[in-house]
Amino acid sequence: MIEKIKIIRYAKWFSNLTTLIIIAYASVLGFKTLGDVETKYSLFLQFADTFVTIYFIFEIAIKMAAEKKFFNFFKNGWNLFDFTIVIITLLPLESSGFAAIARLLRVFRILRLFTARPELKAIIDMLIKAIPSIIDIVILMFIIFYIYAIVGSFFFVDLPSGLWKDFLISMLTLFRILTFEDWTDVMYEAMDVYPWAWVYFVSFIIIAAFVFFNLFVAVIIGEMQKLQESEMKEEIHEDSKKLDLLLSEVKSLKEEIIQIKNNNKE
Amino acid sequence: MIEKIKIIRYAKWFSNLTTLIIIAYASVLGFKTLGDVETKYSLFLQFADTFVTIYFIFEIAIKMAAEKKFFNFFKNGWNLFDFTIVIITLLPLESSGFAAIARLLRVFRILRLFTARPELKAIIDMLIKAIPSIIDIVILMFIIFYIYAIVGSFFFVDLPSGLWKDFLISMLTLFRILTFEDWTDVMYEAMDVYPWAWVYFVSFIIIAAFVFFNLFVAVIIGEMQKLQESEMKEEIHEDSKKLDLLLSEVKSLKEEIIQIKNNNKE
Amino acid sequence: MIEKIKIIRYAKWFSNLTTLIIIAYASVLGFKTLGDVETKYSLFLQFADTFVTIYFIFEIAIKMAAEKKFFNFFKNGWNLFDFTIVIITLLPLESSGFAAIARLLRVFRILRLFTARPELKAIIDMLIKAIPSIIDIVILMFIIFYIYAIVGSFFFVDLPSGLWKDFLISMLTLFRILTFEDWTDVMYEAMDVYPWAWVYFVSFIIIAAFVFFNLFVAVIIGEMQKLQESEMKEEIHEDSKKLDLLLSEVKSLKEEIIQIKNNNKE
Amino acid sequence: MIEKIKIIRYAKWFSNLTTLIIIAYASVLGFKTLGDVETKYSLFLQFADTFVTIYFIFEIAIKMAAEKKFFNFFKNGWNLFDFTIVIITLLPLESSGFAAIARLLRVFRILRLFTARPELKAIIDMLIKAIPSIIDIVILMFIIFYIYAIVGSFFFVDLPSGLWKDFLISMLTLFRILTFEDWTDVMYEAMDVYPWAWVYFVSFIIIAAFVFFNLFVAVIIGEMQKLQESEMKEEIHEDSKKLDLLLSEVKSLKEEIIQIKNNNKE
Repeated sequence: MIEKIKIIRYAKWFSNLTTLIIIAYASVLGFKTLGDVETKYSLFLQFADTFVTIYFIFEIAIKMAAEKKFFNFFKNGWNLFDFTIVIITLLPLESSGFAAIARLLRVFRILRLFTARPELKAIIDMLIKAIPSIIDIVILMFIIFYIYAIVGSFFFVDLPSGLWKDFLISMLTLFRILTFEDWTDVMYEAMDVYPWAWVYFVSFIIIAAFVFFNLFVAVIIGEMQKLQESEMKEEIHEDSKKLDLLLSEVKSLKEEIIQIKNNNKE
Repeated sequence: MIEKIKIIRYAKWFSNLTTLIIIAYASVLGFKTLGDVETKYSLFLQFADTFVTIYFIFEIAIKMAAEKKFFNFFKNGWNLFDFTIVIITLLPLESSGFAAIARLLRVFRILRLFTARPELKAIIDMLIKAIPSIIDIVILMFIIFYIYAIVGSFFFVDLPSGLWKDFLISMLTLFRILTFEDWTDVMYEAMDVYPWAWVYFVSFIIIAAFVFFNLFVAVIIGEMQKLQESEMKEEIHEDSKKLDLLLSEVKSLKEEIIQIKNNNKE
Repeated sequence: MIEKIKIIRYAKWFSNLTTLIIIAYASVLGFKTLGDVETKYSLFLQFADTFVTIYFIFEIAIKMAAEKKFFNFFKNGWNLFDFTIVIITLLPLESSGFAAIARLLRVFRILRLFTARPELKAIIDMLIKAIPSIIDIVILMFIIFYIYAIVGSFFFVDLPSGLWKDFLISMLTLFRILTFEDWTDVMYEAMDVYPWAWVYFVSFIIIAAFVFFNLFVAVIIGEMQKLQESEMKEEIHEDSKKLDLLLSEVKSLKEEIIQIKNNNKE
Repeated sequence: MIEKIKIIRYAKWFSNLTTLIIIAYASVLGFKTLGDVETKYSLFLQFADTFVTIYFIFEIAIKMAAEKKFFNFFKNGWNLFDFTIVIITLLPLESSGFAAIARLLRVFRILRLFTARPELKAIIDMLIKAIPSIIDIVILMFIIFYIYAIVGSFFFVDLPSGLWKDFLISMLTLFRILTFEDWTDVMYEAMDVYPWAWVYFVSFIIIAAFVFFNLFVAVIIGEMQKLQESEMKEEIHEDSKKLDLLLSEVKSLKEEIIQIKNNNKE
């Protein structure tokens, strides 16, 4: 029995079927928002919803049954991820006041595509592994944002646009400047009161956007290339091992020859 | 006879002539839109049009005739591409109501430059080969867009700008935010109703524009560099083979020496 | 005694405590700007301020005491950096007319995070080391800016927006164009007077933003990757040394064999 | 005599002096545009101008005199570049109606910094060498621009903004969209007439800005890295040669041993 379930669980058609159902369901959810579809086809939409809910429970049951020990299922991070998504959309919120929120939460079912397509999992796993190399640049970015936000909300607090009203709003304004979004409007407003304000804005753009943002991009590109270069690295590493083997071979050869030489002399 | 055609077909001057005619024709098409050129020089323009049509038919006939078997011509993707472009601009749409469309389609004749200049073909071929490594990041981008579009069209549907009216328009608005195009206008409008809306916009920009868009760029840069690095890779690969050869040589040497030693002992 | 101080100075918990205090203090400074917090909790804020000032003096005293010779403390750039920050925030500006400035300067205490977290120091050190490779591109960028600013303030000086009023304002306008910030507004205004003005703007964007800005990015990415690639480089370098060793071994082997051969002949 | 001139010509202090004079002159030119400086210090400005003109003539004379044959001077591209700049600013345009233009041309004297600082020359030389690898992507970009410009000026020619009036203006509008500059304004205007117009704009951004622009960036980054990687490549290349040498050594060794074996048998 468990063997049969295992075959189904790891079958290609099973994961393809799940992928198909998720995509079909995602399209239905997308259509819902178009015009007055919701009122016209409400019965069909409700049916689709119930069907997907049941299929997801069934699918997760298969996955649980395929494990030797029931608890092993929860040891895999991606299984936990799947399980949480299924549980959240099962909560009986519909009848309560949170019906709208419940319907919204269903959208996260599309995230189950991650589990159905291993390539997507690989990219997410790579990003998680890249966090340690990114974290320090993020901290540095935060320090820069922090100093500029405090200085900005100190000098520009009374500007009529209210973009520097307090510390948090200043952070948002700086984030906007980082994306170059109408940053000159913000600067020209500040320059009307403090003519030297351009130093603040130009230095922030050069430090945060030109230098540190590009460092951040460089790390992401580097991680991506590390994945692709590992092949070459491995070959170089293997060559190094072969060289070691060769060296020891040649040395043993030398010993043999010296022995022959000594034997001959005797 | 077929030999002579083949010499013409692969001659440098033949492809150069085609390139020249395409560029001349493209310039004529460009001039057409300037002021009242079309009415003044209409006879000349018509003549140019007819000449290029005839030359293209003649050129494709040469290419067909140069093949041993007529059908081999259609086995090459680029030949098919050329053929389609020539056929489309031959369709007798002028006399019908689609005259304007027919005239427009002629612009795609410039695409024939791809076939005339092999370096352009190489870049396109490279891009086609890079699709498998890009496809998963595109899917991930689509999932992010999908979730944000559903959530956005759920909360912001009634905003006066109508930028979140339905699912498809929300997707377009998100694409606009990805390019940072006046994204704060969209955000400030949403923040008037939901003060926490900045979480939605800032998180989308960080996830979609900062992380995943840069992954996408990293893959393209990686593919480009793979082309340039292959040379180095090959040399490393060759070195590895030489090392294997060396190892087997040294081992056979050892056997010889041990034989000598044994012979000496006897 | 000095041994005990040394143990404290290099202890992990000591640097962690400093980090914690800096972050707590930074949060307090951030809160200060929110609404009317400053008037309500002014006593608490003042206490926090005094506490951090005392802790910083105490911490720097520990660091000085841990050195064998007092003066060695000032030989390290990062120590000098710490010392300056502590001194600046100690200046008795509060009572004078510069009270506001004095309060502002306290924000730079967050920069002490650099010293508490060595990974941040590493990135800053890397950036400092990258300056020689960046400097020439910065000079080139400056030359391009300079020429365009002179030409721009020559032709467009009388435009109503005043964006080309003098050399320095022209530089700022060009910086804005480099970030693509509403650059078409600037261009269309200029094209009303000089219809060919698009040549000026398009050429500046292609030269400064497309070519030289990307060179600048390329250098930063290159420096970052150099750090990560050094591992592979080292292995290749080591392989090269192993090959040299191997060659000399094989040569000595050859000599031995020739000796045997000669001995046999005799 | 010629030896003394040569010593001066290649002396570090000579190129440093030239650099200094160029920078000083550039600062003077920059100041000129500030307020009413030109009228107040006109005598000083005129003196500076004359001095630099004379110094440049003197400097180029030294460089010419340092060549063995006078004509060799013109064989170097950078010498020609210097010479042209000096000649242009010597033209007696001041007295004629082109006085303003003549004064403007003087700004190009700052370009002489290239010759004074060899690192700048190296970057320019690198860019010139990179042209062949960039040219094909530029052609592809042009084809994309061309097709979109023709299609755009066909459909959107009558839009009130006049951004698609004719072929050349459409090209400029597309260049603006490439930089994401208020591209949604252009799109929303077009969508009022043709609701499907978003396909045109979104496809252009994806093809031109996302794919081909990044290819262009990838090539520039690649060229930059090639310069830095050549060192590693060389080492790998050298290793390969060492391996070849090793192989031939081991083979000759084998022959020797087989000879010994045969000798022993006899």
